[in-house]
Amino acid sequence: MYKVDLNSDLGESFGRYTIGSDDRIIPLITSANIACGFHASDPVVMMKTVNMVKEAGTGAGAHPGYPDLMGFGRRNMNISHEEAKAYTLYQISALGGMCKAAGVKLSHVKPHGAMYNMAGKDYELSKAICEAIKEYDPSLIVMGLAGSQMVKAARDMGLKTAEEVFADRAYEEDGSLVARSKPGAMIEDEDEAIARVVRMIKEGKVQAITGNDIDIKADSVCVHGDGEKALLFVEKIRKALTDEGIEICPLEEVCR
Amino acid sequence: MYKVDLNSDLGESFGRYTIGSDDRIIPLITSANIACGFHASDPVVMMKTVNMVKEAGTGAGAHPGYPDLMGFGRRNMNISHEEAKAYTLYQISALGGMCKAAGVKLSHVKPHGAMYNMAGKDYELSKAICEAIKEYDPSLIVMGLAGSQMVKAARDMGLKTAEEVFADRAYEEDGSLVARSKPGAMIEDEDEAIARVVRMIKEGKVQAITGNDIDIKADSVCVHGDGEKALLFVEKIRKALTDEGIEICPLEEVCR
Amino acid sequence: MYKVDLNSDLGESFGRYTIGSDDRIIPLITSANIACGFHASDPVVMMKTVNMVKEAGTGAGAHPGYPDLMGFGRRNMNISHEEAKAYTLYQISALGGMCKAAGVKLSHVKPHGAMYNMAGKDYELSKAICEAIKEYDPSLIVMGLAGSQMVKAARDMGLKTAEEVFADRAYEEDGSLVARSKPGAMIEDEDEAIARVVRMIKEGKVQAITGNDIDIKADSVCVHGDGEKALLFVEKIRKALTDEGIEICPLEEVCR
Amino acid sequence: MYKVDLNSDLGESFGRYTIGSDDRIIPLITSANIACGFHASDPVVMMKTVNMVKEAGTGAGAHPGYPDLMGFGRRNMNISHEEAKAYTLYQISALGGMCKAAGVKLSHVKPHGAMYNMAGKDYELSKAICEAIKEYDPSLIVMGLAGSQMVKAARDMGLKTAEEVFADRAYEEDGSLVARSKPGAMIEDEDEAIARVVRMIKEGKVQAITGNDIDIKADSVCVHGDGEKALLFVEKIRKALTDEGIEICPLEEVCR
Repeated sequence: MYKVDLNSDLGESFGRYTIGSDDRIIPLITSANIACGFHASDPVVMMKTVNMVKEAGTGAGAHPGYPDLMGFGRRNMNISHEEAKAYTLYQISALGGMCKAAGVKLSHVKPHGAMYNMAGKDYELSKAICEAIKEYDPSLIVMGLAGSQMVKAARDMGLKTAEEVFADRAYEEDGSLVARSKPGAMIEDEDEAIARVVRMIKEGKVQAITGNDIDIKADSVCVHGDGEKALLFVEKIRKALTDEGIEICPLEEVCR
Repeated sequence: MYKVDLNSDLGESFGRYTIGSDDRIIPLITSANIACGFHASDPVVMMKTVNMVKEAGTGAGAHPGYPDLMGFGRRNMNISHEEAKAYTLYQISALGGMCKAAGVKLSHVKPHGAMYNMAGKDYELSKAICEAIKEYDPSLIVMGLAGSQMVKAARDMGLKTAEEVFADRAYEEDGSLVARSKPGAMIEDEDEAIARVVRMIKEGKVQAITGNDIDIKADSVCVHGDGEKALLFVEKIRKALTDEGIEICPLEEVCR
Repeated sequence: MYKVDLNSDLGESFGRYTIGSDDRIIPLITSANIACGFHASDPVVMMKTVNMVKEAGTGAGAHPGYPDLMGFGRRNMNISHEEAKAYTLYQISALGGMCKAAGVKLSHVKPHGAMYNMAGKDYELSKAICEAIKEYDPSLIVMGLAGSQMVKAARDMGLKTAEEVFADRAYEEDGSLVARSKPGAMIEDEDEAIARVVRMIKEGKVQAITGNDIDIKADSVCVHGDGEKALLFVEKIRKALTDEGIEICPLEEVCR
Repeated sequence: MYKVDLNSDLGESFGRYTIGSDDRIIPLITSANIACGFHASDPVVMMKTVNMVKEAGTGAGAHPGYPDLMGFGRRNMNISHEEAKAYTLYQISALGGMCKAAGVKLSHVKPHGAMYNMAGKDYELSKAICEAIKEYDPSLIVMGLAGSQMVKAARDMGLKTAEEVFADRAYEEDGSLVARSKPGAMIEDEDEAIARVVRMIKEGKVQAITGNDIDIKADSVCVHGDGEKALLFVEKIRKALTDEGIEICPLEEVCR
């Protein structure tokens, strides 16, 4: 039986600013990556998000990012090993404590935005992040780009990993995402996007932008939760995966 | 046998800014109130402070404050019940996770600055803070101004409490501190300050600024750790208390 | 000929967070109160907002607030005279420089949220704010709640003032706004709201919540720019005022 | 007659955190680069610093940096052209307004830390910064690393420039500073450091770390103002330059 997790980045509202359709996306996914107050969110939003996730029975994950609220954590920042470790530990602890208070199990950690992208290519940065995760709770699952340095570092440290794939993004031959600025970076056709995901899950293959097939492991598929179109796509991919005999289930069942 | 805890607010450096003589005060006290990144500190400073406290065997406490780095958490802010609870939970979780990662037991929580002062007079605000503490870990000790609403709220919620006294401050008849702006607010004479503390511990009394004695419970004495003079005073009060047969010991022994 | 200015608080988006319908409200008003980065906005948003205001020919004003992004500047904070002056000077300078760069004249200053409300009742705080305004540019118009300490302090310092009224709020007999938590605080009926504004402008009177008439000066009416309903109301009040022979014109014409 | 300016980065205290010996360095230099609240400082500190500079008659410059207080603006951040321009405009406007209020002329702009280093190598980033400067006040002098892209971009835009040299740093053959991590990066010997500066001013040459001489233009020498040793060095270099017949004078006289 094929299994896959559906994850989404959420809990990204801040103060009086609202973003995302969290109440609608949470019931449709199996893993919620919850912002921790550095690139987005604040303590009140985090508490509310943890409660929403609890009610829906969705898996709770920490989504730490760079300390750059103005840039939404999407701008590359050169931080030291010590800073990367401390920032990660601070954020997963903050969210982890909120989960503990709510009686929710923290299941995974997925870095956000520029931290995710930089760590995917930088083994040392990934190690710093994974040290924080391991010291906080060695049973946490580390989610990173499929085949990336993040996944490699986590595995080398004995942590459980979840390899993440993107339905709407093209891949280079080395398994990295094609930069958004390049033509062909986005898979615009929804049916093609879904077919690619199904093949990743069942065959462990995806066609790179060069035309050649590459190996890829798909433990979790990232979906967006912002806007009507994104929500409709999630419903569509859920149905398609189920029709293909792929079970959508919590990360902990996929990565056991 | 009389027992008392000595506590100090520390871990308040930030980025390239250094404040306090943490390495020198930590070995002299039994409880460290560690800033959590809102009114002071950052994740790197917190990680270092937890390690210093661990090495010295000093009790580790969370020192949450208002989100006001520019004002060092000393400016009154009107925050809601929900905000007070969420801000407290976020901060004690962040520090608690760092302690967990370092193998240090988190022993207590003492709010900082304006949050401490406002909660001391506001039962509802104290309740919000205590709800966060209780949901995070009901075995934590709540430290507040002796006789204050903070102590009352914590006790009403079944939490352990530590009543804190100040050696260098005068008291009003209702047990509150005399405002710094009033004449006589500070006890300048060190010997008098120490004699007052000894009496608080042994007799449970202190002379208010009016001249009348009031009841006071002294579980912990707040000392400053910034500057040569403050450090010398801590050594002096340590010696004086010991000479008086008062044991200086961890909060958990005082408040059992 | 009766004259009145219509003002709205805007430019309050931040980073990836969007708030308000600025592009639609700006052409409908005569004065834009532009957030300056403390309670809302960031430098990119400010630059864009100044350009929008320039294009529409709407009057540009600085809208300084407390340094409390998480609370949107709506939470009371106890800041010193020196801080109030410096925070105001920093914010109006930042916006003023952007206006200078864009070739736009800065016309007025209206404090935001909790700073507006606190200053309205606190002559000393108002003085601190007005000192900053006067030192930056003594020709700026100070906008404050009609009849408030803000207007009084500005006038005492020789600054031009604009007295602001609210269409959708009830008034106490002393000219202050009825707290939102009290019944009857909001004027729900749009026609009644408009009739009240017309009377304020023409007769200089408004019926307080007690039933008694009070004197009020209406140089500018505050309108909201967030959401469809608010925008429709602005169009409605524009038409009603014009039909009543009241000219809607820039603050500088009203307050000359 | 040879002329040179002495500049120092200052006004970098924040809230309760004090850094630098501003009151002692300001009278010894001719140009003060004043932090603007992004990488360091706050409005109260800025106001005080402008007043100190005014009293000493030292030239006032804006010292804008990345929005990274936790990293003191020393960490590389990938910001867009629009962001670089807006952040610069915001910061120089804020400081410029404070200068205006104090009756002080703003003379120059020198980016800080990572922004300075990145702009020195990146013509496009330099252009964004210079656009802000030019739109705010085209008479401002742009200070950048001697021979850098910053100086080139400013000159190409018709702005006045000040080429800055470092007494205590070794140079690569391309005129860039030798990275601090490399051996020989710092000129430890004070007499050698001073002799190098004298030669830069008189001959327009400096020996690169490779042993070969390179051309360099020295309009301004950067000195540190933090700590006893730094202050003594400033007095020493002042005396040495004067003894060599080099006049230490305001940037505007050097760069006319």
